[in-house]
Amino acid sequence: MNAERQLAALLEAAGPGVAAGLARMEARLEEIAAGDGEALAAHARRMVAAGGKRLRPLLVLLAAGPDDPPTAAVAAAVAVELLHTATLVHDDVLDRAPLRRGRPTVFATAGPHAATATGDLLFARAFAELAGTGSAGAVEALSAASTALARGELLQRADAWDAEVAVDRYVERCGLKTGSLFAAAARLGALLGDGGGDPDGLAAFGDHVGVAFQILDDVLDVSGPVERTGKHRGTDLLDGTVTLPLILARARDPALAALDLRAEVRDAAAAEAVCDRIAATGALDAARAAALERVAAAKALLPAATGGDWQLGVLDAVADSVVARYS
Amino acid sequence: MNAERQLAALLEAAGPGVAAGLARMEARLEEIAAGDGEALAAHARRMVAAGGKRLRPLLVLLAAGPDDPPTAAVAAAVAVELLHTATLVHDDVLDRAPLRRGRPTVFATAGPHAATATGDLLFARAFAELAGTGSAGAVEALSAASTALARGELLQRADAWDAEVAVDRYVERCGLKTGSLFAAAARLGALLGDGGGDPDGLAAFGDHVGVAFQILDDVLDVSGPVERTGKHRGTDLLDGTVTLPLILARARDPALAALDLRAEVRDAAAAEAVCDRIAATGALDAARAAALERVAAAKALLPAATGGDWQLGVLDAVADSVVARYS
Repeated sequence: MNAERQLAALLEAAGPGVAAGLARMEARLEEIAAGDGEALAAHARRMVAAGGKRLRPLLVLLAAGPDDPPTAAVAAAVAVELLHTATLVHDDVLDRAPLRRGRPTVFATAGPHAATATGDLLFARAFAELAGTGSAGAVEALSAASTALARGELLQRADAWDAEVAVDRYVERCGLKTGSLFAAAARLGALLGDGGGDPDGLAAFGDHVGVAFQILDDVLDVSGPVERTGKHRGTDLLDGTVTLPLILARARDPALAALDLRAEVRDAAAAEAVCDRIAATGALDAARAAALERVAAAKALLPAATGGDWQLGVLDAVADSVVARYS
Repeated sequence: MNAERQLAALLEAAGPGVAAGLARMEARLEEIAAGDGEALAAHARRMVAAGGKRLRPLLVLLAAGPDDPPTAAVAAAVAVELLHTATLVHDDVLDRAPLRRGRPTVFATAGPHAATATGDLLFARAFAELAGTGSAGAVEALSAASTALARGELLQRADAWDAEVAVDRYVERCGLKTGSLFAAAARLGALLGDGGGDPDGLAAFGDHVGVAFQILDDVLDVSGPVERTGKHRGTDLLDGTVTLPLILARARDPALAALDLRAEVRDAAAAEAVCDRIAATGALDAARAAALERVAAAKALLPAATGGDWQLGVLDAVADSVVARYS
């Protein structure tokens, strides 16, 4: 079953309450994007509408329970998606990216100043939305995630071009960059919804799933195919971002261990050649296996962390859908 | 009396409670900057330590009252300074600025990725600090200011190079870019302190003072002197940012009205020549007068908005200190 069909099946199984919550989240996102004057409406609305899989808000709503969710839980779903979108807008400025999900980026349309401001504005809107719930714990959870995202970016820059980075450090970075917001999403749903799950336990589940998601994303950057990712293989290598496939491959291939990324990998052709070499070591399968271990660890937490059979089932399916996306 | 001495006199008059609050704010800023791992500690600590006049946190504490302030008011003072610093870090990325307040910027030291992440992290920390107070109204006030700051930046980019921008639109931009955070500072102090002032009234006072501050800053960009501003005159002109001095001067000098900024003002020498031409029209005095009107309007609000004679006196002095800074 492919990822889209798996997600559709999951939503079907989750029932009308979650579907209603997602629809309310979309309506509110649209409202927020339209509510900040023409300039924002143009930029933010396009970014917010471009969507994506809405995996983080879905996690909020599943943690919030089977029924049509309380307003506060919908606000949390909106907030995590706004925060995620804010980081994407800033990433596009830094990468000078022309396209995201096939559409022109805010950077490309409006330049770096407007794009940085749009990202800042989406940040502010995320916190405003959550503050409206009156839950200081919720705002703190989102703020902790936001801090972690920024620390992850700083760590990535600090480690750039350092091929000798350890697996533990790589995993720490995945936790900061991706696990943290998945964890916050699950925690917020548990805090603000009626799902009856344990906030800490569900946050730990979200963290594991997020790390698995990031590892598989990093595998995809090496494996392609291009038609699937929309970019050539090896963009991380060109960027100096050392990920698990290269870390594992270096231990298996002395030529890769001796490679000086910054000096020797300077264009797309060189990056694709290194990708082929990494794939030849079997490191991609080893990295996928590491991700699957994380998914298994996430699922193992569910019996104790969830509020009942419904929640156990849908969160189990979410963990599978992350893997399916890459299979 | 120069601005530094005027500020020192104000603090003397404000008494030991406000001084204690400022010291607690500084200690907390230092703690936050040190608490996020090595990379942030290095970048954020330098930016936070570089300081500046701490005008926004001072406004929080004066609005909070004469006594050693409640923890929540100190948190608000910390939060507004963190948010302000976050925007400076992002501005430095966009301007590719090597120096701020005589020190290397995060951008110059660590590059655009780390600097953008540092700014995002300071944003998140600001909201976390305020969320810790448990006041949803406070988080909403900061979020509204943050949204306004971003909208101001978007408006400025939308209006760039448009010399025909109206005075009202320019003032709106000043309100968004600068008035909003001054207003939030005063509102937060009123909400979280014991000063007894009216939050809306004090916010309106802060907004007027902030707009005056911005107008005078824009005058300084044209008037210099360079030793005072640390940059050559006319940086706004080179940037395409049309400010009150040029708007007023265009109505007085047909040659300025006919000037095509983008085509004709392309280097520092050309910008300085336009600055001289603006000054020759008398527009700088007219712009200063507009700022003084704002200060007067701010002061006129104080009798009704403040919680007593002490607060009226110190906020009156703050309004004067903004003017003194530029006289």
